[in-house]
Amino acid sequence: MTTGPQIATGSDALTAGVDLGGTKIQTVVMRSDAIAGQSRMATPQTGADDVAIAVSASVRAALTDAGSSIQALTAVGIGAPGRTEAGVVSHAPHLPGFREPFALGRIVSEALGGVRVAVDNDVAVATLGELRRGAGRPFRSMLGVFVGTGVGGGLVIDDRPWHGRGAAAEVGHITVKPEGRRCGCGQRGHLEAYAGRVNMEARARRLAERGHPTILFELMAKRGRDRLTSGTIARALERGDAVAVSLIDDAVWALGVGLATAQNLLDVEAIVIGGGLSERFGAAFTQRIAVEIAPRLFVPDHPPAVLGAELGDLSGAVGAVVLAEG
Amino acid sequence: MTTGPQIATGSDALTAGVDLGGTKIQTVVMRSDAIAGQSRMATPQTGADDVAIAVSASVRAALTDAGSSIQALTAVGIGAPGRTEAGVVSHAPHLPGFREPFALGRIVSEALGGVRVAVDNDVAVATLGELRRGAGRPFRSMLGVFVGTGVGGGLVIDDRPWHGRGAAAEVGHITVKPEGRRCGCGQRGHLEAYAGRVNMEARARRLAERGHPTILFELMAKRGRDRLTSGTIARALERGDAVAVSLIDDAVWALGVGLATAQNLLDVEAIVIGGGLSERFGAAFTQRIAVEIAPRLFVPDHPPAVLGAELGDLSGAVGAVVLAEG
Repeated sequence: MTTGPQIATGSDALTAGVDLGGTKIQTVVMRSDAIAGQSRMATPQTGADDVAIAVSASVRAALTDAGSSIQALTAVGIGAPGRTEAGVVSHAPHLPGFREPFALGRIVSEALGGVRVAVDNDVAVATLGELRRGAGRPFRSMLGVFVGTGVGGGLVIDDRPWHGRGAAAEVGHITVKPEGRRCGCGQRGHLEAYAGRVNMEARARRLAERGHPTILFELMAKRGRDRLTSGTIARALERGDAVAVSLIDDAVWALGVGLATAQNLLDVEAIVIGGGLSERFGAAFTQRIAVEIAPRLFVPDHPPAVLGAELGDLSGAVGAVVLAEG
Repeated sequence: MTTGPQIATGSDALTAGVDLGGTKIQTVVMRSDAIAGQSRMATPQTGADDVAIAVSASVRAALTDAGSSIQALTAVGIGAPGRTEAGVVSHAPHLPGFREPFALGRIVSEALGGVRVAVDNDVAVATLGELRRGAGRPFRSMLGVFVGTGVGGGLVIDDRPWHGRGAAAEVGHITVKPEGRRCGCGQRGHLEAYAGRVNMEARARRLAERGHPTILFELMAKRGRDRLTSGTIARALERGDAVAVSLIDDAVWALGVGLATAQNLLDVEAIVIGGGLSERFGAAFTQRIAVEIAPRLFVPDHPPAVLGAELGDLSGAVGAVVLAEG
């Protein structure tokens, strides 16, 4: 699905972008609009200092992959879960060892010879990537939606990211059904409770416990997975697994209800949908969501473009480069 | 509740603001921040041309009320229902005779000696009034919510109104309950279906038909009203009418669910609530809504200010002056 930046080679100035997740660290280095090198590694589960060391190592590895070195590095951008302010990451429970605020930006900068480091929220950064280098390029207003472990969002108003007071675009916490399923945040009936991976897995387990036959957990075991991935859901769907069908139907329905509400409030030009489910199911997924959104729009004859994220799983890393360049 | 502009006198330059509604035309003329004169008249039900004549007449009447005349008039702003573009009003089914697009701005300008006339959507204009001259003054981001015949909204992002592609801030069409009550727009479960006057009246009639005892319709008849006003609901509440209690409970609940979703998306500094119910019930109403919003926020420790509209039923007319001055 990656149709944006192209691979390039050379030895002039490079900017690095790091997408720091709970399980993996994805880094790219770019020369103007082209990806010159990449690196991908597992996120250390041993504490924040080790994570900072790994982030620095991933930048060095991506520079090496580009046939370059730290001398060519002009700046580093990092997209991190949770809240970020002045390079400090907080409220990131999914990041091992980040229970307390952690000065990630400063520490990575020190480890990379004092280079300038910018840190922002991962989903905001991925939205920026799609806006400037991906599916959002033609638009000045856009809602980015990332359907992964949870459901995150990023909002662009009048060609600028809108963060509100630091917590805007929480698309996953749109209420789609009052008193509905329990969300990871503790409340009920949120979009994420139907379309987030963690909640979908919990739902599948409940259905199995209630006697609904499903091959999902058998497939997980066979594939050596300890969590329900988009790939496992896709294989179960291919075999007509009724539980997998209902999981996806519910996710699409919730995305339709929630994103129609978002559109009735925001009236953006485009909704760009990324994350694991979107990557796995491609245009079929975004089109099903568009079909659910349409009849719920207040102005049905003027729907937004509903598009898949163009940068695939590099939205975050490429967006982090854009952040660093900004 | 009007604590904003003060009455002033004098003979220098004046700007007029017109709030054009389906039943009344409310006009003010202002000298800098002070209201110098007012006029209020019924909206003619005999066609768009007659409405344009009445708007012009209301501006002249307000100038006379200010002890002034058309020579002092520098500009006119008009807030009108429906969509507006370059002074043309369209999609305004509640405005008698406005089924086709109507060049209201040009015609009013001609009737007032060629003065500059700006036209915008009524709710957007009322939000502008509250932002610049009312409860929104301290804030750079705000959601205006007007609970009247329907439920309208206006959105301010980074100190500027955000209209999207012309249909943003449709707060009334946030889904609060999928497959819930039928909304005026034909869809189900929208906020307006629970908190808009027309829908509340329809709900009251259904409850009465099903045998729920209520004095609402008796009160309406006694007061010579042909529609269920906030005043009638207030009197019924005072007498403990169970149907009136449930109407208000449902409206407050729906506003809580819908505005929490809006806040989770927008993270604005303030939500300013105006319209008939807000004027009638004052701070008790906005506080009940704030209490419903709070537990549904994704960041509950940082709620927005939830405030009543400060300009009362003049939000629209004062906002139209701001529009004209812009």
